Amino acid sequence: MAQQTVLVTGGAGYVGSHTVVELLQTGYSVVVVDNCCNAYHQDTNAASNGATEDRNGVGGTRDGKQDDKNGHSNGAGAKNGEGGKVGAKTVLPVALERVEDITGKTLAGFYLISLLDEEALTRVFSEHKIDAVIHFAALKALGESVAMPLEYYINNVAGTLTLLQVMRNAGVKRLVYSSSATVYGLPQYLPTDEDHPTGPGITNPYGRSKYFCEQVMTDLATADKEWGVVLLRYFNPVGAHASGRIGEDPRDTPNNLMPFIAQVAVGRRDAVQVFGQDYPTPDGTGVRDYVHVMDLASGHVAALGLLWKSGFSGAAAYNLGSGKGVSVLEMIHAFTRASGRKIPYVVTGRRAGDVAKMVASCTRAQTDLGWKATRTLDQMCEDTWRWQSQNPQGYA
Amino acid sequence: MAQQTVLVTGGAGYVGSHTVVELLQTGYSVVVVDNCCNAYHQDTNAASNGATEDRNGVGGTRDGKQDDKNGHSNGAGAKNGEGGKVGAKTVLPVALERVEDITGKTLAGFYLISLLDEEALTRVFSEHKIDAVIHFAALKALGESVAMPLEYYINNVAGTLTLLQVMRNAGVKRLVYSSSATVYGLPQYLPTDEDHPTGPGITNPYGRSKYFCEQVMTDLATADKEWGVVLLRYFNPVGAHASGRIGEDPRDTPNNLMPFIAQVAVGRRDAVQVFGQDYPTPDGTGVRDYVHVMDLASGHVAALGLLWKSGFSGAAAYNLGSGKGVSVLEMIHAFTRASGRKIPYVVTGRRAGDVAKMVASCTRAQTDLGWKATRTLDQMCEDTWRWQSQNPQGYA
Repeated sequence: MAQQTVLVTGGAGYVGSHTVVELLQTGYSVVVVDNCCNAYHQDTNAASNGATEDRNGVGGTRDGKQDDKNGHSNGAGAKNGEGGKVGAKTVLPVALERVEDITGKTLAGFYLISLLDEEALTRVFSEHKIDAVIHFAALKALGESVAMPLEYYINNVAGTLTLLQVMRNAGVKRLVYSSSATVYGLPQYLPTDEDHPTGPGITNPYGRSKYFCEQVMTDLATADKEWGVVLLRYFNPVGAHASGRIGEDPRDTPNNLMPFIAQVAVGRRDAVQVFGQDYPTPDGTGVRDYVHVMDLASGHVAALGLLWKSGFSGAAAYNLGSGKGVSVLEMIHAFTRASGRKIPYVVTGRRAGDVAKMVASCTRAQTDLGWKATRTLDQMCEDTWRWQSQNPQGYA
Repeated sequence: MAQQTVLVTGGAGYVGSHTVVELLQTGYSVVVVDNCCNAYHQDTNAASNGATEDRNGVGGTRDGKQDDKNGHSNGAGAKNGEGGKVGAKTVLPVALERVEDITGKTLAGFYLISLLDEEALTRVFSEHKIDAVIHFAALKALGESVAMPLEYYINNVAGTLTLLQVMRNAGVKRLVYSSSATVYGLPQYLPTDEDHPTGPGITNPYGRSKYFCEQVMTDLATADKEWGVVLLRYFNPVGAHASGRIGEDPRDTPNNLMPFIAQVAVGRRDAVQVFGQDYPTPDGTGVRDYVHVMDLASGHVAALGLLWKSGFSGAAAYNLGSGKGVSVLEMIHAFTRASGRKIPYVVTGRRAGDVAKMVASCTRAQTDLGWKATRTLDQMCEDTWRWQSQNPQGYA
């Protein structure tokens, strides 16, 4: 079988970059589209960038073929400057430089464009023979989405509609979508499986944007049997690549527990805020289902496997979680063990919209995708700590 | 108070054109944006167009100021050719020509553009001082939406997102949205009021597109208190302007009962299909809440009244219906009386997704908007028949 090419939108982001590692190591050819609105992207080959070591001193600068129009470049084979005329230099976001270092492989292309730019996106599909798309690109801060709903709906929903249209025009109808357990709203039962109702009870525009996109893709795959779509509903992604070279790098104050804990451990913040210790859980703090980002990454590769199966059609949803509940205090304790640092915390009141407990049923992913999360809580903490301690300020 | 200007998207459509009549007669200045994908739009001043009679022989051609870019024109004051340089002629869609005839008034502008064209839409807001928008423009055929979901989501959702963005950029944050009782899905109780859950149970992408837009507008108005949005949930719009000059003109086979009956009465079709006579209703046929389109039109003017109230903020939803249930057979009998024609019908099986009965509670609209449907079933049928018999082929 010829090498297949996967287009990854949002490939410079947290889950995206880890998935690109897994894809490259599995043998896929990978093209990344990202507008880098959240990813750290340097304009110059910063001297402080340790990513050059394994790369024969070439550094992070990528000499791409100059594009006659939008300035984006196709970096395939251009890493050492042999890739055609030197013109506009497209610098890879740091996360993707490091992905190339980790894997020793080169991306087939990187495009610094917005999904809303239909013309630029169409060019990507004309410049590469894409076999499937993994669609991560989205704004993802819950709190911000409440304050800036229109930005979220435009980026996440209109951006997805443009992508779907361009895919259809290009005859590419294989898609893995980065969804979220948020689509379940407040869970009516635990562990929550894929048949749980979606939509009602979603408390923020971010979650609604994910739900809307799931609905659009499901309607599309119902109308046109040539489409095959896998909706992956993540629970709480944490951890980092075992190399410590890539990891989660929140732009502002972290929205999620794990990066917050990590920033406290490394000294960037004073104390972890624990929102409520009066929940009906063993230690009174909220219980969540944390899943290692490299497990998530392999889940995407498993989803591609389903897409390649002859006869696969329609839209199928799968939970990606560990299936295990971990409380806030358990997480703090585990991170303390992993880091050897003290992690001060203060208990404050419950946060609006939070539930006591959320845990995934992941049997469907195991049955259909042959996928199961294998990494432990300790590994999640150790890998996060390696990333955070080696990169106290993230990619900056 | 200076004359206020209302931008009407989809103003050439069925409910849109009737609302424009009401707006002009109330004294509003009206600008219409329509891509005329469903409205009949003649390229030439057809001789068969009876609309010229009241207009001093000027005819349907509108000499607009030539636009230097997109070919759309602002027809303000240009009706008799005195509106500046003669260049590109923008012909009004027939429905809007007739609206001008009926009212004896002229539109402040007409733009043949798509809502997806952000640049063109921005120009409209720069060329007119818009006080509020009434947003009708959407694809609306339920069955078609199942077959072509992406077109529906792009036109209805992405189009609305573009409109909202352009409105915000222009500082226009007063909006009346053309929603639908479809957002209630299968009704859990009757009469259905505005507190009924929305979202779950919607059976087609058209309905979901309306629901998504309601959610977006609600989130937007929650985040930014400068927004005031009225969501109008129509039940079953029927009837026509009393002049018989404008009415519903379905492009293909009518999706709805009333235009189907009218086409049978006028001889364009053989018989009305009655989907199911075994429902738990008095005569076994489905019961719906029909509302006269001119009542709907006045509902939009009433909604504008709410928007002008100082202190009004947020998104408020109102049912627009008659509050009365009418069965399929009752409607056929009423139309027989109104038209004096025989209306053959054949009973076939139930249609998937249909419910036995749907009736609106309209007390909230009466309380807050001072609005109530006043036109009777007989008027609905008489007005529809006048339109249909005077225009057997619609606007064509």
